[in-house]
Amino acid sequence: MGLAPSRCRASYVDTLNVELGIRSYPILIGAGLLGRPDLWRQHLQAQDLLIVSNTVVAPLYLPALAAGLAARRTVEVILPDGEAHKTLANAARVLDVLVANRFGRDCAVLALGGGVVGDLAGFAAACYQRGVAFVQVPTTLLAQVDSAVGGKTGVNHPGGKNLIGAFHQPVLVVTDSGTLATLPPRELRAGLAEVIKYGLICDAALFDWLEAHLDELLAGDPTGLAYVIRRSCEIKAAVVGRDEREQGERALLNLGHTFGHAAESATSYKEWLHGEAVGAGLVMAASASVECGLLAQREAERVHRLVERAGLPTRIASVPPEVALEHMRIDKKVLGGRLRLVLLRRIGEAVLSADYPAAALTRTLAAHFG
Amino acid sequence: MGLAPSRCRASYVDTLNVELGIRSYPILIGAGLLGRPDLWRQHLQAQDLLIVSNTVVAPLYLPALAAGLAARRTVEVILPDGEAHKTLANAARVLDVLVANRFGRDCAVLALGGGVVGDLAGFAAACYQRGVAFVQVPTTLLAQVDSAVGGKTGVNHPGGKNLIGAFHQPVLVVTDSGTLATLPPRELRAGLAEVIKYGLICDAALFDWLEAHLDELLAGDPTGLAYVIRRSCEIKAAVVGRDEREQGERALLNLGHTFGHAAESATSYKEWLHGEAVGAGLVMAASASVECGLLAQREAERVHRLVERAGLPTRIASVPPEVALEHMRIDKKVLGGRLRLVLLRRIGEAVLSADYPAAALTRTLAAHFG
Repeated sequence: MGLAPSRCRASYVDTLNVELGIRSYPILIGAGLLGRPDLWRQHLQAQDLLIVSNTVVAPLYLPALAAGLAARRTVEVILPDGEAHKTLANAARVLDVLVANRFGRDCAVLALGGGVVGDLAGFAAACYQRGVAFVQVPTTLLAQVDSAVGGKTGVNHPGGKNLIGAFHQPVLVVTDSGTLATLPPRELRAGLAEVIKYGLICDAALFDWLEAHLDELLAGDPTGLAYVIRRSCEIKAAVVGRDEREQGERALLNLGHTFGHAAESATSYKEWLHGEAVGAGLVMAASASVECGLLAQREAERVHRLVERAGLPTRIASVPPEVALEHMRIDKKVLGGRLRLVLLRRIGEAVLSADYPAAALTRTLAAHFG
Repeated sequence: MGLAPSRCRASYVDTLNVELGIRSYPILIGAGLLGRPDLWRQHLQAQDLLIVSNTVVAPLYLPALAAGLAARRTVEVILPDGEAHKTLANAARVLDVLVANRFGRDCAVLALGGGVVGDLAGFAAACYQRGVAFVQVPTTLLAQVDSAVGGKTGVNHPGGKNLIGAFHQPVLVVTDSGTLATLPPRELRAGLAEVIKYGLICDAALFDWLEAHLDELLAGDPTGLAYVIRRSCEIKAAVVGRDEREQGERALLNLGHTFGHAAESATSYKEWLHGEAVGAGLVMAASASVECGLLAQREAERVHRLVERAGLPTRIASVPPEVALEHMRIDKKVLGGRLRLVLLRRIGEAVLSADYPAAALTRTLAAHFG
């Protein structure tokens, strides 16, 4: 194993706060953070730690993290890699290890990995003894810009994505941007889908910036990546601070996700990375917005083009439209039997709507699935 | 099936509120409430309901409840009876049924039964789509005086009681005291253990009243039972309102429970009802309090005598003391490796203590286990 970038001491730590009253917590962003004992000493009290990671990430970053955590008692659960393993059975496995090691309510569960590891470990932390401390150490771009922040945890059900879960905020997010140096290109592109999403829902300037600088991001430029991580976390932290439990505004963060979740669950979570499915979902949301007369065609074309340039899918050929619709019906945004969709008024402004023509949805699905 | 008492319309509804800000909810207490459409219309919005019950309670009260719920869409999950079935696997079964029926976030899960059904159904409601509405319809004395109020939900782990769970408050508690008419005497006695507990921790007058009126309660006197349900709910609602997440005072409600949970988990949840184990646990807590020099011997004797008169066990002969201690070590009140105990200063005043002589615990276990 070579010297991972996270081993290099970096002195600069960018700190953002998610403001949630007594459940507020910091997001620390910077290169080389996960191996820094000073940060762990300063920000984490728990002495008994269960580290959840996967077979790809653990060999790369567990040694540095263990060095950073120094003298604490740590136990590891290493899961197989991939969305197909984000199951209740694997969450139960984490719970079994917590019980077997007699971990008390003052322990912490620490997720080292991407969204799958973070969601599953967070759900286990939410359920163990009715809730123990939880720390996110995201190592993929997608987790760093999105899933590690905001307290949504959960596992998939064969019938639908994230149907079993809890709101359980972390006590700390340590985003070591150095880990992106080892991130496979496919995973990097998947993360960009969520960054594009932030531009679409509330930050037209970010979307413009992405159009101008996408190639640098795809080439792994650390400065560009640091900018999108910071900006994405700012947006997410602000939205979550205003609407932790998704009573309103937070639902907009699901732009493209209802389509994407259908693509994922209809392919048993095996064909697409979450971010890839979201990429296609963003194109579909833009297309549906045009069908509803909300969005100009040329804006939808910009969305399509940027997603395509990011190397993300713009359609899901392996799933027939009627199967996709069936999977969308169990989405968490269904209310009173009616599926609500996040749609675009323009780039930089999203709306949640239950009041759209059924044909708009049907035509969108027919054009982008199967 | 005879005419269940709950079928008789009773006009009187006693209402108590659990004050938790936006999560406040009413407890409705009275005879015949579960079959009253007017109350359901007034207090419950959800139209899609998943009713969780068990094989003993469902034949007795599901028809009346269904009549009360009138035109709503209801689906039932009927579990086997008993604490041994309060498992993650059965919670997963409830989740499967919610998914299979495409229930949305606006559904409600309704628990019709005792503590096992309520805890498990509440945990499923907490996890489904990260939390859906939950309604408690307790049909045992234990659930009516204790477990249906306060939002503690969960399932057992083979390694320990309630180790997997969530805080998830109900939106409504409908306590139909008419259901006690069919409650087996053993279950009635189990419920009395929790009533005795309230007297011990904070209401000496209630304890005195129980000493004077226990025989009426054991004979099923409705007036006496109505009094203890009301008083118990008042105490629990007040404590939960002040300390929902058990950061402090709420831990006192666990008097006798650390001992009791050890008795339950060491016998695989098959030998004792929860309330029976708590009965023995109260005697042990009193005894440990004497060992610590906190409680007068004659007060401990009053506890022993009342528990015995209630027909509850005062010792757990089938579990060796060292096995009990092993099971206590995974209790949720362990902090920093130290087991905290709820002890009595006198009848009517409990304290949480981590600062007691180890020998006091050892001697108590030796005297009451094995």
